[in-house]
Amino acid sequence: MALRHYTLDFKLSAAVDSSSTVPDLLSIFHEQEMTETVHETNGHGYLGTFVGKNGWLAILRVHSHGLVTVDLQCYEEDDFAQVDNLLNALESKLKVILNGNITRIKRLPALVRGAEVDRYWPTTDNRLVEYDMDQLVYEEDSAFQNIKILHSQQYGNALILDNDLNLAESDLAYTLAIMGSGRENYTGKEVLILGGGDGGILSEMVKQKPKMVTIVHIDQKVIDACKKYMRGTCGNILDNLKGDCYQILVEDCVPVLKKYVQEGKTFDYVINDLTAIPISMEPEEGFCIVFFFLHFFLYLTSGHKMRLNLILKPCELLVVDSTWEFLRLILDLSIKVLHPSGKYLTQGNAENMTESLGLYEEQLGRLSCPVGFSKEVVCVPSYLEQWVFYSVWKK
Amino acid sequence: MALRHYTLDFKLSAAVDSSSTVPDLLSIFHEQEMTETVHETNGHGYLGTFVGKNGWLAILRVHSHGLVTVDLQCYEEDDFAQVDNLLNALESKLKVILNGNITRIKRLPALVRGAEVDRYWPTTDNRLVEYDMDQLVYEEDSAFQNIKILHSQQYGNALILDNDLNLAESDLAYTLAIMGSGRENYTGKEVLILGGGDGGILSEMVKQKPKMVTIVHIDQKVIDACKKYMRGTCGNILDNLKGDCYQILVEDCVPVLKKYVQEGKTFDYVINDLTAIPISMEPEEGFCIVFFFLHFFLYLTSGHKMRLNLILKPCELLVVDSTWEFLRLILDLSIKVLHPSGKYLTQGNAENMTESLGLYEEQLGRLSCPVGFSKEVVCVPSYLEQWVFYSVWKK
Repeated sequence: MALRHYTLDFKLSAAVDSSSTVPDLLSIFHEQEMTETVHETNGHGYLGTFVGKNGWLAILRVHSHGLVTVDLQCYEEDDFAQVDNLLNALESKLKVILNGNITRIKRLPALVRGAEVDRYWPTTDNRLVEYDMDQLVYEEDSAFQNIKILHSQQYGNALILDNDLNLAESDLAYTLAIMGSGRENYTGKEVLILGGGDGGILSEMVKQKPKMVTIVHIDQKVIDACKKYMRGTCGNILDNLKGDCYQILVEDCVPVLKKYVQEGKTFDYVINDLTAIPISMEPEEGFCIVFFFLHFFLYLTSGHKMRLNLILKPCELLVVDSTWEFLRLILDLSIKVLHPSGKYLTQGNAENMTESLGLYEEQLGRLSCPVGFSKEVVCVPSYLEQWVFYSVWKK
Repeated sequence: MALRHYTLDFKLSAAVDSSSTVPDLLSIFHEQEMTETVHETNGHGYLGTFVGKNGWLAILRVHSHGLVTVDLQCYEEDDFAQVDNLLNALESKLKVILNGNITRIKRLPALVRGAEVDRYWPTTDNRLVEYDMDQLVYEEDSAFQNIKILHSQQYGNALILDNDLNLAESDLAYTLAIMGSGRENYTGKEVLILGGGDGGILSEMVKQKPKMVTIVHIDQKVIDACKKYMRGTCGNILDNLKGDCYQILVEDCVPVLKKYVQEGKTFDYVINDLTAIPISMEPEEGFCIVFFFLHFFLYLTSGHKMRLNLILKPCELLVVDSTWEFLRLILDLSIKVLHPSGKYLTQGNAENMTESLGLYEEQLGRLSCPVGFSKEVVCVPSYLEQWVFYSVWKK
């Protein structure tokens, strides 16, 4: 049973004294049979808590600097009309008491805490946003990550990896943007996709009759979940791991990239659609290296909380020399398998993450092969923030 | 000085006893020199409040049904590191105490209450969303409404009328959608735009060399504000109220529509871009009628709080017979001035407002002239919810 947390705030043009504010409000709480406790605040204004027999908690604060805040915590099963009545009564009375001194009244939608279905998935720049998710469709922990698929009324099913919203069925705009927003022609081309286990890019690309699309995705469970629950994104393309013009390799992309480099194999397009959260590591040259997928560093300076899913084998030694070196290594591998006239396409980060984006662009300038790049900002419906996509080419 | 309100919630698979949970946490609050008060909850679990000398308030609740919630209220000027440390300490300790019983840990971005710039503009279906607004660029009360323009890092300037976000400079997608998403050709056409004072539609339309575009917008102050601060939307088109192929009439659209009907004037396109909140009324047939702009009813069943700005002249009588009849009247007027082969284009509502959308479509079936319609769902960047647009034509 979830807790519903209501707030009601009055921003004032001048500070008010609690003795002129509080007494008139007390009867409203008393009518609800709520018991008052007045707390000592050492000069920080009036702070009263009111507890009801039904478990309700109200907090009334008359701050010392022109702000009155009210909190009300009740339960999901409680009578909404009764809650509304209490808040309406407080709002009406405060409007009268504070008349002429009010610069803003703010009564926000309730914060729902501990609900069955979690609707709060903050943006990359750490803003609080409530989604319209109404059902947990699927959840499983794979060897690599926590996989959730949640249903949204307006976005369809949404894939959430390690609590990071990856893609929803509404998000064709993402797929089109990472494919170059219609500027690229994939007919007869060789394409390598890193990540892309939701099948969105593949599903769009095969329509253009490419020569061969190779997807390298590490997590079979993501593919299976998307095949079943994200058909608005992948259609039926994931029903088979191999088709006339595509193959899906369920592998870590790093050794695959290295093999391609050794063989001298090149691609007309490399599309990096890896999840922004690093999920694999591989042993290398006698010791173990934590492998940060390409875009990890974009998150280094973000407010995003991140979980590293390290799969440490016994007696392996964890060595992280320089995150930036690893990142350049991966980017270099991708550029190495790119045909001289090819394009490397990838998602970047939220438009607001200007520092991270700047660091990424700095890295592009430090590759062993000089590259040029362009970027564009796209609105992906379920993201609730503008997103930057990059096109990179060899100079 | 704003209040920062942090929450930290543990959803549990089974209820826990407070005696096994609370004692280990007390030292964390005591280290911050916070004074504990334990409240009687009549069987609703443990509820403790902790007040610090700096005005901090923490609330610890061990609910009786498998949920532990922590609230922390501090001030904007307080030491963030100290806040983080306290929340980290509580989260770490609770992870240990509740080990094996946790189904979700949720620590949301702080709710900022009473800030200079308000960043919370709930969606039409009343979800809590935090924007990245960082500056109040303009605010004024006109005779019709409160007008605000707020700056957002990613959306540019955003026009907010009566606390309803209308349009941001990023929202070309809105303008293109209400113009028919590229399916219509305005070259040489006669167009009537109701509302549209931000100049977005006009600015796009003149590129197609229409014969004449007439905008009827009631509020000069909105036009002036957009001319100055929404140039990403209107360019320089609002610098003159009249041009080679357009005129902007600063009037209530109802008498203008009636005049056109009387004159038998028709348009190839009528675009209804009126704000969803009704802002004018007009006297009619001896008594006063509250005029609800066309889309008002779309909001009737929404969770949106609405303010009616009634401009009551002395000794006028307020009569509202049937909202639906008025709405049909307005829609009828628009259809009456529409050329038989013309199109009526308008925004509808949020995709999630299914009931309101259904009621609107029902109204379309009750007009004096039979009409057909199509709709499409568009992602408007600053809206943070999918939006429905309608095309209507005479059968």
